[in-house]
Amino acid sequence: MTLTNRKFLLAARPVGMPKRSDWAYVEEPVGEPKEGELLVKVLYISLDPAMRMWINDARSYMPPVGIGELMRALGLGVVSASRNPRFAVGDHVSGLLGMQEYALSDGRGIAKIDLKAALPKYLSVFGMPGMTAYFGLLETGQPKPGEMVVVSAAAGAVGTIVGQIAKIKGCHVVGIAGGPEKCGYIVRDLGFNAAIDYKSEDVKQSLRKHCPEGIDVYFDNVGGAILDAALTQIRRGARIVICGAISQYNETQVRGPANYMMLLVARASMTGMLVFDYEDRYPEALAELSGWLRDGSLVSREHVVRGSVHDFPETLLMLFDGANTGKLVLALETE
Amino acid sequence: MTLTNRKFLLAARPVGMPKRSDWAYVEEPVGEPKEGELLVKVLYISLDPAMRMWINDARSYMPPVGIGELMRALGLGVVSASRNPRFAVGDHVSGLLGMQEYALSDGRGIAKIDLKAALPKYLSVFGMPGMTAYFGLLETGQPKPGEMVVVSAAAGAVGTIVGQIAKIKGCHVVGIAGGPEKCGYIVRDLGFNAAIDYKSEDVKQSLRKHCPEGIDVYFDNVGGAILDAALTQIRRGARIVICGAISQYNETQVRGPANYMMLLVARASMTGMLVFDYEDRYPEALAELSGWLRDGSLVSREHVVRGSVHDFPETLLMLFDGANTGKLVLALETE
Repeated sequence: MTLTNRKFLLAARPVGMPKRSDWAYVEEPVGEPKEGELLVKVLYISLDPAMRMWINDARSYMPPVGIGELMRALGLGVVSASRNPRFAVGDHVSGLLGMQEYALSDGRGIAKIDLKAALPKYLSVFGMPGMTAYFGLLETGQPKPGEMVVVSAAAGAVGTIVGQIAKIKGCHVVGIAGGPEKCGYIVRDLGFNAAIDYKSEDVKQSLRKHCPEGIDVYFDNVGGAILDAALTQIRRGARIVICGAISQYNETQVRGPANYMMLLVARASMTGMLVFDYEDRYPEALAELSGWLRDGSLVSREHVVRGSVHDFPETLLMLFDGANTGKLVLALETE
Repeated sequence: MTLTNRKFLLAARPVGMPKRSDWAYVEEPVGEPKEGELLVKVLYISLDPAMRMWINDARSYMPPVGIGELMRALGLGVVSASRNPRFAVGDHVSGLLGMQEYALSDGRGIAKIDLKAALPKYLSVFGMPGMTAYFGLLETGQPKPGEMVVVSAAAGAVGTIVGQIAKIKGCHVVGIAGGPEKCGYIVRDLGFNAAIDYKSEDVKQSLRKHCPEGIDVYFDNVGGAILDAALTQIRRGARIVICGAISQYNETQVRGPANYMMLLVARASMTGMLVFDYEDRYPEALAELSGWLRDGSLVSREHVVRGSVHDFPETLLMLFDGANTGKLVLALETE
């Protein structure tokens, strides 16, 4: 029996929110691995805000996905055939497997997973979001015990972990999230000191209330009006970590932070971070994060949508609608 | 004979460019110093872009000048009467003397000048602009030999010194300035490697041409479109020094840097600096700057407008019209 691979190619550069017509759905027979190759059956696909950047034709940290090319996606899978000595059938692997059901690979950029936790955790706390939170907060943010840390998209894949690490490090933590359910979750279940619901509160006023002496570290995942509100409340010597700008990814005209001159007033800095720069230190982060998960000081939540590759365009939009809490993952229910 | 003091008070918070009606001109008799006070006859008044910030009712690094209060201004003068043991008649002094002809002071914030150079130099290279350029470039910018340094408002009080120090430190230096006269000056007289005339060139294209491998240090005095153009050309690990934003000071709606996500792409930082934080290290900067002036590696130019306090409102606007090259100073021709 020949297996069928289902996948999405980028069909057009989206203007604003990506539409289904920006994607091309393709079904094709699965190829056989050649010498040195392996075939991975994809089990989980990571849905990340960064995907929206990867499909723009702009200078970025990776070349954009070309028109007609397989959509780039991180994923987890199991090796179903191998002619590569590094991998055996049955191995669990992670890597840029693409938006498809079967990935044929020469093994480059594919890592074996030493399975110690539920598989989706390797796309969340043990994956890119966990590494981003760990190094972004600790290396770029440099929080000190007793300092005030604020994080936006606080109920998201990165934000939930940033806030919890900051708590572990002895900081006071305020999260900004959308809606009472998410705000309740980060305070009640994750131990944030306070939450600000940007959908119903004046963020600037609420930051003033919760951070009466100002913000020492602001970890930004959203950009736009929330970044501007945070800028008005930074304390002298504050560090702003630029990790993402989800509010702006679908805008044709990006809104720059109009209050950036607060960097001068507060002698503060705004620094961009990219997780790949810390690749050689992932083991250190994994060890520490595992310990925290074990002793219960860290909770990781995955928002798993069960379906097929065909559901990708709509599932991706959940990120921009704020429909997920924790890491958004598509679990493939292939036969 | 009773002396007359002429001064400007802030009459209204300007919207956009400050108009003469935003100021109140007052003539009044000069007071006598009381015990502990001194009277300074003001000789030179510094005109600084920061003045535009000082008169906004917004959180800043200093409280704003209040309505009805004397306009804040740095100045140089000579002590004409003293009942303060620290100062003798004939001493030259500098400090926040205000926009007036005679300053009565208790001595706080007034420094004696050990006159070794022409007086206006103590408002330029030996004053706030010199200190700002020195510490902003060397401490915040951290330029290394061979790196590419770009400075905006390059023919201004701070920019001229930033570019020259960067050259002394072995960097390649590109200045952005308005018009052929200024661009010629910074290359021919100050030794910049290249100049970009933002009035006639596409800054982004010209930066790409002059900095083919990207910008390592961008020292920003202007904000707006030029900051955005520079952001597109930063190199990995670039440092952006936020020193001023003269293009935005008279805007009712500040334009934030829309390309700030390049900080992430380039793992770069944008840091605000304020010269006052380095007060205890001014002597170190003064010693080094004096040496460079003596050996000819540094040139300092003052743009001296001779007139009276009454000319202040129009003279200030020269800064925003780009009418000055080097430090803009009002020399008082009092009788």
